[in-house]
Amino acid sequence: MAATEHPSYKVIGTRPVRPDGVEKVTGKAQYGADVRLPGMIHGKILRSPHAHARVLSIDTSEAEKVPGVMAVVTRADFPVAEDVVQDLGEGAVSVKELSDNVLASDKVLYRGHAVAAVAATSPHIAEEAAGRIRVEYAVLPPVLAVRDAMREDAPLLDEQRVTKEMGGQGSGRPSNVASHLRFAGGDVEAAFAAADEVVEREFTTKMVHQGYIEPQNSTASWNADGTLTIWTSTQGAFVVRSQVAEVLRLPVSQIRVIPMEIGGGFGGKIPIYLDPVAALLSKKSGRPVKIVMSRTDVFEATGPTSGSYIRMKMARKDDRITAVQATLAYEAGAYPGSAVGAGAMTMLSPYNIENFVIDAYDVCVNKPKTSAYRAPGAPAAAFATEQMIDELAKNAKLDPLELRLKNSAHEGTRMVNGAVFPRIGAEETVRAALTSPHYRSPIEGPNRGRGVASGFWFNAGLQSSVVASANSDGTVNLIEGSTDIGGTRASLAMQLAETLGLPFEAVRPTVADTDSISYNDVTGGSRVTFASGLAVYEAGQELRKEMVRRAAKLLGVDEAELVYEDGGVQSTRDATKRLRFSEIAAKAGQTGGPIAGKGAVQARGVGAAFGTHVVDVEVDPETGKVQILRYTAVQDVGTAVHPSYVEGQIQGGVAQGVGWALNEEYYYDESGRLLNASYLDYRMPTALDLPLIETVLVEVPNPGHPYGVRGVGEVPIVPPLAAVANAIAEATGHRFRDLPISPRRIMEETQGLA
Amino acid sequence: MAATEHPSYKVIGTRPVRPDGVEKVTGKAQYGADVRLPGMIHGKILRSPHAHARVLSIDTSEAEKVPGVMAVVTRADFPVAEDVVQDLGEGAVSVKELSDNVLASDKVLYRGHAVAAVAATSPHIAEEAAGRIRVEYAVLPPVLAVRDAMREDAPLLDEQRVTKEMGGQGSGRPSNVASHLRFAGGDVEAAFAAADEVVEREFTTKMVHQGYIEPQNSTASWNADGTLTIWTSTQGAFVVRSQVAEVLRLPVSQIRVIPMEIGGGFGGKIPIYLDPVAALLSKKSGRPVKIVMSRTDVFEATGPTSGSYIRMKMARKDDRITAVQATLAYEAGAYPGSAVGAGAMTMLSPYNIENFVIDAYDVCVNKPKTSAYRAPGAPAAAFATEQMIDELAKNAKLDPLELRLKNSAHEGTRMVNGAVFPRIGAEETVRAALTSPHYRSPIEGPNRGRGVASGFWFNAGLQSSVVASANSDGTVNLIEGSTDIGGTRASLAMQLAETLGLPFEAVRPTVADTDSISYNDVTGGSRVTFASGLAVYEAGQELRKEMVRRAAKLLGVDEAELVYEDGGVQSTRDATKRLRFSEIAAKAGQTGGPIAGKGAVQARGVGAAFGTHVVDVEVDPETGKVQILRYTAVQDVGTAVHPSYVEGQIQGGVAQGVGWALNEEYYYDESGRLLNASYLDYRMPTALDLPLIETVLVEVPNPGHPYGVRGVGEVPIVPPLAAVANAIAEATGHRFRDLPISPRRIMEETQGLA
Repeated sequence: MAATEHPSYKVIGTRPVRPDGVEKVTGKAQYGADVRLPGMIHGKILRSPHAHARVLSIDTSEAEKVPGVMAVVTRADFPVAEDVVQDLGEGAVSVKELSDNVLASDKVLYRGHAVAAVAATSPHIAEEAAGRIRVEYAVLPPVLAVRDAMREDAPLLDEQRVTKEMGGQGSGRPSNVASHLRFAGGDVEAAFAAADEVVEREFTTKMVHQGYIEPQNSTASWNADGTLTIWTSTQGAFVVRSQVAEVLRLPVSQIRVIPMEIGGGFGGKIPIYLDPVAALLSKKSGRPVKIVMSRTDVFEATGPTSGSYIRMKMARKDDRITAVQATLAYEAGAYPGSAVGAGAMTMLSPYNIENFVIDAYDVCVNKPKTSAYRAPGAPAAAFATEQMIDELAKNAKLDPLELRLKNSAHEGTRMVNGAVFPRIGAEETVRAALTSPHYRSPIEGPNRGRGVASGFWFNAGLQSSVVASANSDGTVNLIEGSTDIGGTRASLAMQLAETLGLPFEAVRPTVADTDSISYNDVTGGSRVTFASGLAVYEAGQELRKEMVRRAAKLLGVDEAELVYEDGGVQSTRDATKRLRFSEIAAKAGQTGGPIAGKGAVQARGVGAAFGTHVVDVEVDPETGKVQILRYTAVQDVGTAVHPSYVEGQIQGGVAQGVGWALNEEYYYDESGRLLNASYLDYRMPTALDLPLIETVLVEVPNPGHPYGVRGVGEVPIVPPLAAVANAIAEATGHRFRDLPISPRRIMEETQGLA
Repeated sequence: MAATEHPSYKVIGTRPVRPDGVEKVTGKAQYGADVRLPGMIHGKILRSPHAHARVLSIDTSEAEKVPGVMAVVTRADFPVAEDVVQDLGEGAVSVKELSDNVLASDKVLYRGHAVAAVAATSPHIAEEAAGRIRVEYAVLPPVLAVRDAMREDAPLLDEQRVTKEMGGQGSGRPSNVASHLRFAGGDVEAAFAAADEVVEREFTTKMVHQGYIEPQNSTASWNADGTLTIWTSTQGAFVVRSQVAEVLRLPVSQIRVIPMEIGGGFGGKIPIYLDPVAALLSKKSGRPVKIVMSRTDVFEATGPTSGSYIRMKMARKDDRITAVQATLAYEAGAYPGSAVGAGAMTMLSPYNIENFVIDAYDVCVNKPKTSAYRAPGAPAAAFATEQMIDELAKNAKLDPLELRLKNSAHEGTRMVNGAVFPRIGAEETVRAALTSPHYRSPIEGPNRGRGVASGFWFNAGLQSSVVASANSDGTVNLIEGSTDIGGTRASLAMQLAETLGLPFEAVRPTVADTDSISYNDVTGGSRVTFASGLAVYEAGQELRKEMVRRAAKLLGVDEAELVYEDGGVQSTRDATKRLRFSEIAAKAGQTGGPIAGKGAVQARGVGAAFGTHVVDVEVDPETGKVQILRYTAVQDVGTAVHPSYVEGQIQGGVAQGVGWALNEEYYYDESGRLLNASYLDYRMPTALDLPLIETVLVEVPNPGHPYGVRGVGEVPIVPPLAAVANAIAEATGHRFRDLPISPRRIMEETQGLA
C-alpha cells in the first residue's frame, strides 16, 4: 500500500472524457425532475409565512374538497418519533428534529418551514389546494443573528433546550446555544505575555447558499406490500434510506432509494426534505407522488451554511505565531448542528501553533437549518485566521507566505483535536505559491492589491463498496453506490483500469440504487475518489486473481507459474503463454462462469488536503466594485487521478469562495423574511466576473492509498474569503472583517475610498 | 455438496408469500408498457401482407411527410451483418437470419414479417404513417406444412440453403431442410426381427403459441455518446444485450438492458424482435422510442413452437421395449432452428431402450420463426412415444404404467446422445402414479377413459451470478440477474435464507440490469432455481465467513474459535459469546465496512426432471367435446424449495399441454394467412375448462446441488398431449394421432362416435 513518489501510471494522470459527459451535455441524463411513472401525481408543500410562531391548528378540509386533490398530509400523519439520535456519518442527527424540519409539529422556526402538503393530479391543483389549508399561528418574535440569539433575553426557539457542554455540565438554563466545544493546548496566557505583538479582532460572515443548479426533488411510490421506492436527487442514497427509515419508522430494507443524476450538491443534498412527505402522500393516495421545489423553496427552506461570528486574538514572537485564543459562534439555523466544530478544528491546521484555546458555540436562530457546504465550517474560520496572520506579517514587515512557511504544519504536527498528521503537503503548497509565476510577478497600479491565504480540510473516509464484472467483450462493468457529483465515475474507473492494466474506455461505471449494491456513505467529505477508490482497488485485485485462475485453465498450466501484468496473464516460464484480459473474459462461460470482483471498505488512511491561494484585485474607487485580476490556487492533491477534474474542482471551489467573499449573503428583513430568494437577487459570480483561475497541482502522495489519492474537492473553497479580503486590504488600505465585501460595504466603510 | 435424503430445512420447503406478489396483484409492478421517458415517442412496425415474396423496393417518402413522424427505419439502416453464428445458450443463432427476422432484407418469409418501422409523436400517427410506406413485392408461392416443405419440388425459402448433415456432407442440393441429425445405438433391425410385436405409426402436431399474457415491447434510448439503453420484456437481459450487439454491431458494453417485469414468456421471450428497431428509430430521431406489439403482431410475427411430423416404429418383446426407429420433422418457421434435436434426444429418455435409430429434420416453412416453448421439442415427441407404448401395452394386455416401470430409465442409463444419468427419479414417478389415489380409483361410465404418459426434460445449468449484501437492519439484499418468471425471487431468497439461517423475510431479492450485475444466462431451461441457487449458496458461504471475521473483532476473540450457526456466530469455547447476524450487520461500519458475498457459477450437476401423468376424460358423443374429469401430475421435483410454486408450475404446464392436446393450433389459409390471430379465435383453456389439477411431488434430491434442487418448470408440459390422447383412445376406441383432438376432428374421425 506504500505509494511510490514517482510511479509510472498508465491511466492515472491522464485526461479521458468523463463517462457521463455526453449524456449530460446533450440533455439525456435523467434527473429527478425527469421521473415519470404511470399514475403519478404531484405534490406541493404549504410553507410558513412566519419566521417564528406556534402552530395552533391546521384545517385541511377546504383543500381536500378541491377536485383533483388525492391526499393531504400534515405532521399528524407521521409516526411518533422518539428523540433518537443517529450518527449519519456527517454528524449526529436527532430524529425528532429531522422530522420537525421535514414537517413542522408544534412550532414553525423559519419562514418557509414546511407545514402541510397536498398531492393532486396536477402541480397547479396541488398548489391551489395547498393555499386553501387554514393554519392558525400564534406569531412569536424571531431571532435572526447569532449574537442576538446568544443573549439571555433572546426569544427561545426551543424552551427545553439547554447548552450541551463538551465533557461537562451546562448551566441548565434554557438557551439557543445548543452546544459549546472547547479545544485547548499549551499555555496561552504565558505566550501572550511573552509575545512581540498581540492582535485581537472580530469577524462576521453571513449565511450563504451552495448555489446548486438543480432544486431538491423527490418522487415516492408506497407499494401495497409496505415497501417504499424513492427517486431523488441526493448526495447519498443510503443516507436518504436511513433518514427516511428513521422518520417513518420503517426498516431500511423496506426502502429502495434510486439516486437520479444530481445537478450539484456541495453538501446541501445530504439532508432529506421532501422524501418522507412524498412517501406519505403516496401512501395516502395510492399513487406515485412527485414533488419538486421552486427556487424560492430552495433558498428559504433548505440548508445553507451558517452565518458566523468569530473573535480571535493572535500572538507573534519573531517569525513564530505563538498563541491563538478564539471564540466562534455559528448559526445552526432552526435546529442544532452547524459546522462550528469543524471550523474550530480546521482553523489552525495549516500551522504548528503550540498554545491555543478555542471556544465554539452552535447557536439556533430563526432561519433554515444549516447544512454542509464544501469544507463545512472551515472557510469562515480561515477568513479570520488568515487575515490575522496577514495583519501580523504586514505589521512585522514579513512576507505573508514566508511567515506561513515558518509556521507551517508538517508530518508529526498535532492538530487542535489531538490527531497527528502523517505525510502532508502543507509546506509544499506554500513553497509552490512562493515560487509561482503569479507571486513572482509584480502587481502595479492604483487601487490594486495582492492577497494570499492558506486552507485545510480533513477529508473523510467512511464506508464504500463496489462490484466489478468482466463483460465478454473484454470491458468491465464497475458498479458503485456513491452518486457522481464531481466526476467520480471517471476517477474510479481510472483506478480500476490502472489496477487491471486496461485502457480507461474498457471500464464502464454505473451508480446503483440501494437495493443493488452494498452500503455506501455519502458523496461528501471529498471521500469518494479516495475511499471508493480503495474499494475499487480491492475489487481489481480480486479480479486479477480470478483472471489468473481462469487463464490457468485455458492455458492448461499451473496457476503458480502465471502472473497478471499489462492487462493480461503471462506465464513466467514460457513467454508464448499469454492471454489478454479480453481473451479470458470472452471464455468465462467455459472456465467457471462470470468473472467478478468486489471491494468493501471502511476506509483508513485518509489524506488531508492543503491549499494556498494568491489573488490580485482592483477596487473601483467610484463604485466599490472589486475586479479579480488574477487568481492562482496551489493545492496538494495527493495524486491527480484526472488532472482536468482536479483543476475543475479547484476552480469551482475558488469561484464559490470569491462569491462568498464579495457578494453572496442571505439578506433578511427584521421579520425573518429572506429578501433575495432567487438567482436574480442572490448574486453569485458568473464566468464574466472571474478570470481563468490558474491552478498549481502539488502532488504529495497520500501514504494511506495505493495510488496516493487525497480528496481534492473541498479545500479550494477555504482560502478565497481571506485571500480576497487580504488583497482588498492591500488595495484599499482598509481591512474588511465582515462578509460580503460588497460594493455597498466598501463604499460605506471607506467613505468612497476617500 | 452431497444432498442428504432427509434434511431438516428451516426455510426450504415452506410456503412464504412471494416478494413480488403484492406489487403484481395491485398493479404497481412496472412492465415494459409502463415505461415513460421524457421526450419519448412511439414506434410502429409495417408488416408483410404476404407469406412469401421478394421485396423489390421500399418507398418511405410519403410516410416521412406525415406531421409528427420523426424517424423511419428499414433494413438499409442496419449495419451490414456478416453471417456470424453465435451460441446464445439455447442454440446457435445466425446473425444474418436474426437480423432478417427483425427487419426483412431481400425477402419476406411469412405474413407479418417486419419490413419497416416508423416513430412518431403518437402511436396513431406512427401507424398512419407506416401505412403510407409503399413496398413493392414479387409474390411467391408459400409452403406451409413440414412435409410439403421437404418435397423436392417445394418452393424454396432460401435458394442458397443446403441441408447440414450431422458429422457429414449434405446432398449439396438446395432444400428447405436446414439440418438433419441422427442418433443411433444397438441393432435395430435385429431387435425388430426378434420382437413379439412391432407397431409403426405417424403423428402430427400443429404450431401452437406459448400464450403469454403480455405482448412483446421495447423502449430504446440511443444516447449521444453512442451507448444504448433498452427497457424490455425478456427472459434474459444479457441475451438481449448480446443479440442487439450482434445485429447492430456494437460492443456489448455499450448496451444496457433493463429487464422490466415480464408477463409470461415460456421460451417465447428469448429472441429479440423490437429492440434493434426501437434502437435505430431512437438513433435517427434523437428521442427515446417505445414499441408495443398488438396481439395480432404477437401471433403472426413472434415465435410459436413447431408443427411436427413424426413416424415411429416400436418393438416389444415380453415386457421390454426392445427397439425404436423414428423420424421427426419439425417446422422451424422462416429460419432454421426448431427444437427437433431436443425432441429426438428426449423422446426415449424416460426409458432404457437399447436399440434405436432416430432421424431428425429441421425444416423451414413460410410461417414465423419458431421459438422455444417450455421443454422445447419434447411434448410433440412424447406425444408419439407415449401413444406407441400405450398401444403396445394395450395389445399385450399389460398395465401401461407397469410396462413403463419395467422399461424405466435409472441411474446409469445412457441417453440417446450418450449422456449417462446420475441419480434420477424416473421410476419413482411411475411408482407414485401407480399407487396414487387417482390411479387406484375406478373409472366408470360411457365415453370415459383414462390415459397415462411419462415425460422427460434435461433442465439446463449455464451461467449465473448474484451478490448478497447485509443491511444494517439485519436483512440481506440479494441482487440477481435472471428475470423472475416463475417465482425465482422467492426460490433464490429461500436458499439464501436457508444458507444464512435467517427467516425468509430477511432476504430481499432484486433483479438488476445488465450494467449492475455480472453475466447471467436466460431464465429458461428450468435453470434459475438450480443454477442461480448454486450462486446464491456460494454467496451465502462467503457471507458466513465474513460474518465470522467481523464477529471475531466485535467479540475480541480469535476467528478460529467461532462458528456460524443458526443465523449468528457462536464461540465454541464460551456459550455466552454469541452475536446474531443482525447484531454483526448493524456494526459493519465499525468492523471493516459493508458486508457482502458474491457467487458466480457455470453450473455443473444439473438434475434431470421426470413426470408421469394420469388423466380421466369424458367425450361428448354428440359434440365431440372432451371434458377433463380428473388430472394427476406426478413429478420428481428434486427438492421442492417452495412447494406452492412447484405445484403452480406443474399445474400451469398441464394446462398448457391440455390446450395443445385439445384445441390450440395455428390455423392458416392456403395463402399463409393466420386465421385465428387473436385470443378470441385461438382457443386456450380457461379455468372453466379444467378441474383442479392434482399434483404429487416426488423428491429425489439432485446430488449436484447442495439443497438437491432440480428444475421443475418445463417437464410438466411433456406428458399431457399423449396422456389426453391415450385417455380419449380408451374413451372412444379410436386413437387420434393428429393434434389438436378438437371436437371437429373427433366428429370427423369417428363419424360421431357411431
